[in-house]
Amino acid sequence: MSSTFSMVASHSRRTEGEDKIFAANSAAQSAAKTIGPDRVVNASVGALLDDDGSLSVLPTVIELLKNLPAEEYAAYAPIGGLPGFLEAAKKAAFGDFVPNGYIEAVATPGGSGAIRHAIWNYSEMGDAVLTSDWYWGPYKTIAEEHGRKIETYTFFDERDCFHLSSFQRKVHELLQRQNALVILLNSPAHNPTGYSLTMEEWNAVFDCLKAEAANKEKRIILFSDIAYIDFAGNPKESRAFMKLFGNLPENILTIVAFSMSKGYTLYGMRCGAMICISSRKEAAEEFKTVNQFSNRGVWSNGTRPAMTVLTKIFSDPQLLEQIEKERQVLQTLLTERAESFIQEAKRVNLKICPYKAGFFITIPCKYPDAVVAELQKEYIFTVPLGKGIRFAVCSVSKDKCTLVPQKIAAVINKLENL
Amino acid sequence: MSSTFSMVASHSRRTEGEDKIFAANSAAQSAAKTIGPDRVVNASVGALLDDDGSLSVLPTVIELLKNLPAEEYAAYAPIGGLPGFLEAAKKAAFGDFVPNGYIEAVATPGGSGAIRHAIWNYSEMGDAVLTSDWYWGPYKTIAEEHGRKIETYTFFDERDCFHLSSFQRKVHELLQRQNALVILLNSPAHNPTGYSLTMEEWNAVFDCLKAEAANKEKRIILFSDIAYIDFAGNPKESRAFMKLFGNLPENILTIVAFSMSKGYTLYGMRCGAMICISSRKEAAEEFKTVNQFSNRGVWSNGTRPAMTVLTKIFSDPQLLEQIEKERQVLQTLLTERAESFIQEAKRVNLKICPYKAGFFITIPCKYPDAVVAELQKEYIFTVPLGKGIRFAVCSVSKDKCTLVPQKIAAVINKLENL
Repeated sequence: MSSTFSMVASHSRRTEGEDKIFAANSAAQSAAKTIGPDRVVNASVGALLDDDGSLSVLPTVIELLKNLPAEEYAAYAPIGGLPGFLEAAKKAAFGDFVPNGYIEAVATPGGSGAIRHAIWNYSEMGDAVLTSDWYWGPYKTIAEEHGRKIETYTFFDERDCFHLSSFQRKVHELLQRQNALVILLNSPAHNPTGYSLTMEEWNAVFDCLKAEAANKEKRIILFSDIAYIDFAGNPKESRAFMKLFGNLPENILTIVAFSMSKGYTLYGMRCGAMICISSRKEAAEEFKTVNQFSNRGVWSNGTRPAMTVLTKIFSDPQLLEQIEKERQVLQTLLTERAESFIQEAKRVNLKICPYKAGFFITIPCKYPDAVVAELQKEYIFTVPLGKGIRFAVCSVSKDKCTLVPQKIAAVINKLENL
Repeated sequence: MSSTFSMVASHSRRTEGEDKIFAANSAAQSAAKTIGPDRVVNASVGALLDDDGSLSVLPTVIELLKNLPAEEYAAYAPIGGLPGFLEAAKKAAFGDFVPNGYIEAVATPGGSGAIRHAIWNYSEMGDAVLTSDWYWGPYKTIAEEHGRKIETYTFFDERDCFHLSSFQRKVHELLQRQNALVILLNSPAHNPTGYSLTMEEWNAVFDCLKAEAANKEKRIILFSDIAYIDFAGNPKESRAFMKLFGNLPENILTIVAFSMSKGYTLYGMRCGAMICISSRKEAAEEFKTVNQFSNRGVWSNGTRPAMTVLTKIFSDPQLLEQIEKERQVLQTLLTERAESFIQEAKRVNLKICPYKAGFFITIPCKYPDAVVAELQKEYIFTVPLGKGIRFAVCSVSKDKCTLVPQKIAAVINKLENL
């Protein structure tokens, strides 16, 4: 048998390669063991940590989860999700900004599962899926796992605003080549840059999509990834754009990906939902049917105890209020860290992507892998991206956030002026 | 826009249709509300229930789950699964019968996720996946979700034993048509029949596969679904066949699907693992790489708290012993119910498929949907299969198990002699 003999199918030949995020995290953790956590800056993983490096949790959520009756851990949830959870997920996602239209929801394991179903069920094999040039790496993994590819538009224009004309051009170009287009748009508090589209920018996005939708042969699926919405500043204002998902042409479908990972600090429980909005009842019903089928055809059903927790939270206003208070503490922590980083970056002339909120700050640079490697020598662990490096302010204390920009600037200057 | 206009991709058009298992369960539950649970026989869902209709749980497992530190619920697990969990899963799966070979494991959401990855990564688009003519319906859903189809061999011969020649013929036929063949084999305590292959039958299966594997162009993937192994009688004897997964030709790969759903009564937590055995190191490493990639590309990672629970169980012999004792109580309950059903079936001349152990008994009949509908009129809720009906002894008290066979026999006789 030849040494290149492979057991897997032709489409599944993957080159080994550790996930860059988890690899950086492993390296940081072993450094912390060797030289002590105080001297290590672990800005790799996208989870909110306390200043002492332990995971930040919402105590009320954990208490709810620990005190369920035995059956709630043990029993299967229905394939599409517990009905009460699906209603709660809609409330958690939209807040006061429920769009006009037919709305249906299906439970998924976090936002990832929702991305998988959206790509698989709404694009054809070989299609391009559109996102911005700064994007969360697993978008590509999910697309490639399913025989699709990612194409990108330029996220920022020269004024560091949403690059509308690049978006328009790319949407138009892809809809010349294919009849269906899935667009992954992560806002507010975009991973990795921290950008949030303004209402004007959202309006412009939909003007563009409506113009394209005039061709009734085309199907446009806007996938709104709101993974970080609960850490995107004022929880009301940050949701206002979702009102725009209503009253759209029938050949535009919007899918909102709700996740309990960040907003409820239940990363490890793998619970979320995909929620569609359509002006056409049949399209919403089809969404429910097709994605429930996919649930049964991929992972069967979701984690019931997490669903029950969200159901409880949204049936008790006091509980919800308590959790919002606890979350506000974390939001403040996060904002202070980001502000410290940004202020210091300004002082040392370190250019960063336009940050408005969220877990990450991104620094554009020419040689991301080299910069990341060089920073590791100083025990600063970041994640290399295609055109820059990602710094997780969510997991680094304010003090360290103040110390780091100068070091990053020095490394970038050195490498770019060799 | 025409009324047949669909938003989804061409391969994702699904006809609506509630899952038959969950549909029967819903009907049973509303009947119980109307006329009282005592008069209802809900033999639809595959979960072990106490005689009073509540879900049977292993108290020690639930206690472990409820008492984890907050971080264990909140934190992400690594993409491939917690290393300690993967080791524990191997121990839980193989017991004393670790096969010789290179063994690698990847965490998945229950057995379903393992089936998905095996089908997607080890067969080509359009391929047939082989299983027996009696099979768990979602095998078909998972295959169809991914553009594959299920083909079947006849499970039982005229002596009610494993139909070796049908298996051989079908394996050979498919390997004429395609270079890779995924075979889904659910034993011991097969769902839906309760059959377990004997050691002789397992040996014959591998003799057949080895003969086919003489053609080195062919790749054979035996997927061993052991979902019910902890309720398959003596836990040692029931695992002996896995020793046969070692020392196989390099173009046979065995994948064992371990699940915490039944054996640890954590159905709702969605935690399992796929474990491969290969005589070739590279094939095992490829398995790890490819299925980790698929994890990231489908659902990202698994439920950490369930993984931690299994890790704890297998690092503490006393804990394991305690759980095995609790499980034995449930095993006894199940065996008594099945024996009552079988005894009474014999008395009233109701033909059933050869049952050895497990959650279900299957009754072959000509008009399954009509039989199921007719039985519902008598408040007996079962699941229609292609060539019979499935009765979940796991969820029906011993008394009811004794009463039911006569009624089923009467309905079948009536319908088949119309």
